[in-house]
Amino acid sequence: MAEFDLIERIRSRVGSRADVVLGIGDDAAVVRVPADRELVICTDTLNAGVHFPLDTAPFDIGWKALAVNLSDLAAMGAQPAWCTLSLSMPGDDPAWLDSFLDGFLALAGQHGIALIGGDTTRGPLSIGVTAHGLVEPGRALQRGGAQMGDDIWVSGTLGDAAAALVLMGKADAGAIAGGDTNASPLAELRERLDRPQPRVAVGLALVAVAHAAIDLSDGLWSDLGHVCSASGLGALVEVDALPASASLSQGFAADDRRTLQASGGDDYELCFTAPPSARAQVEALKLQSGTALTRIGRMVAGTQVAGVDADDAPWEPERTGWVHFSD
Amino acid sequence: MAEFDLIERIRSRVGSRADVVLGIGDDAAVVRVPADRELVICTDTLNAGVHFPLDTAPFDIGWKALAVNLSDLAAMGAQPAWCTLSLSMPGDDPAWLDSFLDGFLALAGQHGIALIGGDTTRGPLSIGVTAHGLVEPGRALQRGGAQMGDDIWVSGTLGDAAAALVLMGKADAGAIAGGDTNASPLAELRERLDRPQPRVAVGLALVAVAHAAIDLSDGLWSDLGHVCSASGLGALVEVDALPASASLSQGFAADDRRTLQASGGDDYELCFTAPPSARAQVEALKLQSGTALTRIGRMVAGTQVAGVDADDAPWEPERTGWVHFSD
Repeated sequence: MAEFDLIERIRSRVGSRADVVLGIGDDAAVVRVPADRELVICTDTLNAGVHFPLDTAPFDIGWKALAVNLSDLAAMGAQPAWCTLSLSMPGDDPAWLDSFLDGFLALAGQHGIALIGGDTTRGPLSIGVTAHGLVEPGRALQRGGAQMGDDIWVSGTLGDAAAALVLMGKADAGAIAGGDTNASPLAELRERLDRPQPRVAVGLALVAVAHAAIDLSDGLWSDLGHVCSASGLGALVEVDALPASASLSQGFAADDRRTLQASGGDDYELCFTAPPSARAQVEALKLQSGTALTRIGRMVAGTQVAGVDADDAPWEPERTGWVHFSD
Repeated sequence: MAEFDLIERIRSRVGSRADVVLGIGDDAAVVRVPADRELVICTDTLNAGVHFPLDTAPFDIGWKALAVNLSDLAAMGAQPAWCTLSLSMPGDDPAWLDSFLDGFLALAGQHGIALIGGDTTRGPLSIGVTAHGLVEPGRALQRGGAQMGDDIWVSGTLGDAAAALVLMGKADAGAIAGGDTNASPLAELRERLDRPQPRVAVGLALVAVAHAAIDLSDGLWSDLGHVCSASGLGALVEVDALPASASLSQGFAADDRRTLQASGGDDYELCFTAPPSARAQVEALKLQSGTALTRIGRMVAGTQVAGVDADDAPWEPERTGWVHFSD
């Protein structure tokens, strides 16, 4: 399959938007940016065996490649608009490509983001996406906006994706034992690893509420640490308040569960800070969005992330960031 | 070297622009697009051993990764503005990264394009760039705008990069013989392969002159074929008019030289069509830009590219597109 056939196969399936002047098929795409918006641009690449297990279904690879970028837009409070796809494939596999596009375009359709261009190359399987979103001028959420005394919140539940990797034997899990894989709720956890749900609607609503935001890709301790260093503050996290899925609680003892929640990667949830005066607004957003939003701590003096358990005793995870697994 | 050190190493070296609200270091970058401009977006990825020989100097890899994208912007008549870089590297090599950035940022500086974000991953060497440019609304050059009777022009000289690959023994050269490598001007040809000069200034000026444009990455016959199919016309090329560098003429017999000019890839020159009434404008642009612009044929009825030699006898290259070499 030559590059042009590949591109034609992709072009025949994508949707468009009224603000796309020229989509797939020329040297570049052309779009119209509204005069009253700033442009938000992010890019993330997934390599096979590094960012997803080699046995990941092509639908899920397509989904995840877009999801991790939509998660970055969500963390900025941006409305998704357009994306490009850079696809490196080792050989011709139309069935693989169709399933990949099924996943990519299913998520794109949910968020109204148009695939407007890209390129295809021969090489090890790698998927690069650049996503574009729109924000009102000066309103993009940043990592450096946290203020002393802010509440720290996270969306969804934490640690599920890392737990899936532990159960699959794909992660360097250290002392974490996942128990019997057959008895554990691997399917639910694997779903969290393979099909993260970018919190786009929550991010959009947070523009009016949050002081700072980041998406959780490398693990809470690591990513919240970026908020701390960018804001010149510390974070005090109540580890027993970290939200856990039923699957995670069922599959892991409390200590291991907390380590996964505090440091496991690939959650693609949002972590944000907001003043205590905004608690009612956040609670209202929780109801309105149908997404769990949990208060997990507060911004304090200092420079880093510290944890306390339910007895206010210091607690630290065994690791502060999850190094990507390798197959 | 962790990803954050890599990113810091990059961030410490990049320039900025007044329209960059937020550059490298958050979940995404934020920029301001002027209200009187449309946004042009292109993306191209280079894989080691596929898009450049494995022995390519890191400076040249950085240069070329940006150059091929600036060439796409040039073909649209767009003013370069911002770019992102997705860099996959097999291991830690700060010296390699510094040289790579030397090349990337040297070319970025020449064209005033700011590196505003990206990501770094562990994996086989691969460089993905997404470039953004600006055009006046409705003025972007497209492949499909050629009109019957238009002159066909190309910038620079053709076939040099493919000739370098032939001399290096990297291309499936078929019947083409490059002669004695030591005696041939490989250094000059290799420079064309490794450091293509994107024709940005020419592209900007062509907005007021050309009906259609494309950049030559896969070879004239192949790329001009896209102009034909998009415009619903044929192209008649006078093969003896194709511009050749002194190095190419010195290193190859006439027949082989013509095949390289007609079908060799990696030229990153512009091919454009303009009405005969615009010849004086194109000649003036040649003087003003200091870039050779050569009239090589005209748009005719039909659907594809055909060639004639100086005696008006039909001529076709042995191949119509150069498949990328492999190391």
